[in-house]
Amino acid sequence: MLSVYLSGEIHTDWRDQIIEGAKDLNVTFNSPVTDHAASDDCGVAIMGAELDKFWHDNKGAKLNAIRTRRGIELADIVVVRFGEKYKQWNAAFDAGYAAALGKSLVIMHGADHQHALKEVDAAALAVVETPQQVVEILTYVLSGALPER
Amino acid sequence: MLSVYLSGEIHTDWRDQIIEGAKDLNVTFNSPVTDHAASDDCGVAIMGAELDKFWHDNKGAKLNAIRTRRGIELADIVVVRFGEKYKQWNAAFDAGYAAALGKSLVIMHGADHQHALKEVDAAALAVVETPQQVVEILTYVLSGALPER
Amino acid sequence: MLSVYLSGEIHTDWRDQIIEGAKDLNVTFNSPVTDHAASDDCGVAIMGAELDKFWHDNKGAKLNAIRTRRGIELADIVVVRFGEKYKQWNAAFDAGYAAALGKSLVIMHGADHQHALKEVDAAALAVVETPQQVVEILTYVLSGALPER
Amino acid sequence: MLSVYLSGEIHTDWRDQIIEGAKDLNVTFNSPVTDHAASDDCGVAIMGAELDKFWHDNKGAKLNAIRTRRGIELADIVVVRFGEKYKQWNAAFDAGYAAALGKSLVIMHGADHQHALKEVDAAALAVVETPQQVVEILTYVLSGALPER
Amino acid sequence: MLSVYLSGEIHTDWRDQIIEGAKDLNVTFNSPVTDHAASDDCGVAIMGAELDKFWHDNKGAKLNAIRTRRGIELADIVVVRFGEKYKQWNAAFDAGYAAALGKSLVIMHGADHQHALKEVDAAALAVVETPQQVVEILTYVLSGALPER
Amino acid sequence: MLSVYLSGEIHTDWRDQIIEGAKDLNVTFNSPVTDHAASDDCGVAIMGAELDKFWHDNKGAKLNAIRTRRGIELADIVVVRFGEKYKQWNAAFDAGYAAALGKSLVIMHGADHQHALKEVDAAALAVVETPQQVVEILTYVLSGALPER
Amino acid sequence: MLSVYLSGEIHTDWRDQIIEGAKDLNVTFNSPVTDHAASDDCGVAIMGAELDKFWHDNKGAKLNAIRTRRGIELADIVVVRFGEKYKQWNAAFDAGYAAALGKSLVIMHGADHQHALKEVDAAALAVVETPQQVVEILTYVLSGALPER
Amino acid sequence: MLSVYLSGEIHTDWRDQIIEGAKDLNVTFNSPVTDHAASDDCGVAIMGAELDKFWHDNKGAKLNAIRTRRGIELADIVVVRFGEKYKQWNAAFDAGYAAALGKSLVIMHGADHQHALKEVDAAALAVVETPQQVVEILTYVLSGALPER
Repeated sequence: MLSVYLSGEIHTDWRDQIIEGAKDLNVTFNSPVTDHAASDDCGVAIMGAELDKFWHDNKGAKLNAIRTRRGIELADIVVVRFGEKYKQWNAAFDAGYAAALGKSLVIMHGADHQHALKEVDAAALAVVETPQQVVEILTYVLSGALPER
Repeated sequence: MLSVYLSGEIHTDWRDQIIEGAKDLNVTFNSPVTDHAASDDCGVAIMGAELDKFWHDNKGAKLNAIRTRRGIELADIVVVRFGEKYKQWNAAFDAGYAAALGKSLVIMHGADHQHALKEVDAAALAVVETPQQVVEILTYVLSGALPER
Repeated sequence: MLSVYLSGEIHTDWRDQIIEGAKDLNVTFNSPVTDHAASDDCGVAIMGAELDKFWHDNKGAKLNAIRTRRGIELADIVVVRFGEKYKQWNAAFDAGYAAALGKSLVIMHGADHQHALKEVDAAALAVVETPQQVVEILTYVLSGALPER
Repeated sequence: MLSVYLSGEIHTDWRDQIIEGAKDLNVTFNSPVTDHAASDDCGVAIMGAELDKFWHDNKGAKLNAIRTRRGIELADIVVVRFGEKYKQWNAAFDAGYAAALGKSLVIMHGADHQHALKEVDAAALAVVETPQQVVEILTYVLSGALPER
Repeated sequence: MLSVYLSGEIHTDWRDQIIEGAKDLNVTFNSPVTDHAASDDCGVAIMGAELDKFWHDNKGAKLNAIRTRRGIELADIVVVRFGEKYKQWNAAFDAGYAAALGKSLVIMHGADHQHALKEVDAAALAVVETPQQVVEILTYVLSGALPER
Repeated sequence: MLSVYLSGEIHTDWRDQIIEGAKDLNVTFNSPVTDHAASDDCGVAIMGAELDKFWHDNKGAKLNAIRTRRGIELADIVVVRFGEKYKQWNAAFDAGYAAALGKSLVIMHGADHQHALKEVDAAALAVVETPQQVVEILTYVLSGALPER
Repeated sequence: MLSVYLSGEIHTDWRDQIIEGAKDLNVTFNSPVTDHAASDDCGVAIMGAELDKFWHDNKGAKLNAIRTRRGIELADIVVVRFGEKYKQWNAAFDAGYAAALGKSLVIMHGADHQHALKEVDAAALAVVETPQQVVEILTYVLSGALPER
Repeated sequence: MLSVYLSGEIHTDWRDQIIEGAKDLNVTFNSPVTDHAASDDCGVAIMGAELDKFWHDNKGAKLNAIRTRRGIELADIVVVRFGEKYKQWNAAFDAGYAAALGKSLVIMHGADHQHALKEVDAAALAVVETPQQVVEILTYVLSGALPER
């Protein structure tokens, strides 16, 4: 059983594509809460409102950290996807966190982010562009089979 | 002797301000190579040119990692500054790396980045805006003295 | 499967409320022996009487530590409740022990203990007042679902 | 060089007595900030005021944690004193934190707290009542010499 | 599921008594190979004879270490019994090995060995004389139930 | 359940012999991808061609490292076989990697490599020549039974 | 600077011989308190008398553990000498403790203890009989020079 | 102060070239014993002759491991050079050992070994051919200065 954590961009269906593509493999997937509104407001929803936006966010980010860090710690492989937009500092933070724990990192991003992500890519064991490539990596790692193209 | 690593933004003189402000404290500072051109080209300058920009950057980023990871591992406190511009994913990566090693994190950034940095701030023991505040933190941690204002 | 350790106050039914509230979640709970008399006397009951109260207590506390430390080490999340009465130093000790192991800490206490628990709360990823909030946290961490209120 | 961290009660001069008594030994001492007002207000003094007492305390407690955790991590021996008054949960938290890191614990308290501290004492390598006994322990650990009485 | 390693004396049936006594508990037991002749000669039986007794023993002891260290590493609790006869240095070695890994140690021996085993006993969470007491400890740790006597 | 990683030489059927010989034992085996062509080309097959042989190999070796390091980290016992031919530096690298993680090492090689492998053998708990001996070791470690010869 | 811990037998002058023989080497030595009476009575001398011999010894053994464990943790090399007499279980315990921490073990004993110490010897990087051999090992490890004989 | 371990090939003066080239840098170097005869025979020279070549080598390799493992553990950077000749499995073993400890690896070898060393190179932060390049790396890591060419 291979444990994979899917970190990063939450606005496209890349996680679904990987999970669907890997549905016949012996893999379990974990990921952060990808409902943007729930993720932002979870802290105050459960523990009470804050006047100050900093503490509103702080409560939520800490609560999400319970899930996020466990997901990374359980993982054999941490996949981090950087999308086209936004700062996505939490994605890079997760990548650094996973690297320090010695996890196998797979980084996914488009060519335009290549230079900005060079330190992150340098810590990775694979750098890819598409969900299909992640599925191929999981397939190869588990079975040794390469894609036919 | 307190060991402090100064990670992140390399376009303003914030490191100099902290080092000058802390010159009477028992602190040693480490930081990445902050000469942008040297940092980008160090790999190929020493180990030979690459045709492909990805590998040009990869060689440099790995070489810089020798210095960066040692700086973080030696540190009691890792200060990470996020500036106004650029993606700065290496800064967030360093913050995640330091967090996973259990280092005391101090994050420095302006108010406009507050929401985007909420996960990074949530892992920090202090969040500040100015170099002067970092100096005050180092002073307090070493001597217990608070700033007079 | 999420592993949760329930440390601290043993005079109210807060553990039962959490376990009942989380009965449909994929969670296992561990806790110390909550039978006060058994917990106090276990050492001498099994290993023989002591004349000196210090050693009577020492034998029992060490025996309980076999269970307590294993419970904390197995846990993803350590919940520590501070009640209204007593010194409850063992609860704060468990919180420190869990923090040093990098466990996700959830601290539960009433408003009147806020200042006295500030160092413990500062090490936590969530601070709550009620068992219901702990159930909501476990629900959110596992499923991403927030309470409807 | 033996490194000793002196945690706990800040209202009597027990630290000074130990440091004075050990002045001819090869020992370095670290301790938390023992100026109560500074310790309570350090966070807001450096990082700005908070309306909510919880966050006022939270900022301060995290800032103090930079000093406290470093002191414990550097220590060979962690001495924790429990005084007559107050909850002193931070002292018990430090003891648990130190225990989980495998530090040698010395616990100091009066006889009236014996039962309430039984779990903490059970994690210690020595339980004493007076600063003089701590000095004697440091002397013995370093030189093998016992007190003449 | 509690994992228990039974180290030490191999000439009496103490392991069988514990395993029988704990047969209704959720415990798995591991132990060294207790067939004295097999344990002494396993190395040369599989890897070829040695002229020198030192290497005969060395080959066997290393092969046994594969089993022994795994048993200790898997264990929550390491029980070490010292019998009446022989040097039993491997038992004390196992106790030290387990202590350094932070395992819960239970030491079993008769009163006549009390002084000679004081350092080993001081590292233990329980010191007992009989297999029945070990069963009672396992019962208490798992269920909180004390023996009726 | 014993977890065994079979590292090294990929040109003979030694892995099959061990797996067949151990088919009635409670053992799971992991190994690298042993299809030489797939192992060499996996990186470029999934992540795109490289002009430079160094990067062709680098991409493949990193991808294989995802599988290899996980296999070693999961293992109780790491068996490394050195064959008659080739440099086999990856086998020695795996042995060093496993040794640093504290895994039980079993080294398999012919007599002619004895001197060249002395540092590797010195880190092992067993040194053997044949797959049959590995099966006998696994049998002994699990059951205490020695081969009848 | 090489740090060496000298554990075990305290009735002959073997430590002095090693320290004298290594006086021109860049080595620091640590050892337990070797004054037998002080070592036995240190606990009660500092922390108060006990009626029960078990607790008398327990207090002393724990106090000695502060020194002993620090000595082992600081050491690059742990030398453990087994003498002709006594059970010396603390020596074997120290050897196991050091082995689990990955320290380089050197075991010193006479030929008559060879079989009884086989598990301890099997964990060692060197097994010797005389202090002179230990000095030769330290000389070789530091300078590469072998004894002229 | 940067600590560098120089592992591998012992038949050319590459270590001297690096040490000379780095003589103005704040670096300390460690290396194995490079006197081939002493390294081969150290075990029997100090601990007594062996009839069997395997044990002759085993005694020496273990003794050398005291120095080798300490050198690697102390190092910030481990440089491993593979020469033209011999199996050099100890060099690859050291590289794997260093990689598992998270050390920064610099691998030095000629182009003809590129394919055979692909797994080792893939674990490195820099791959070079000459001692001069190692000096340039150390210079850059310490000062940020690049070679003028």
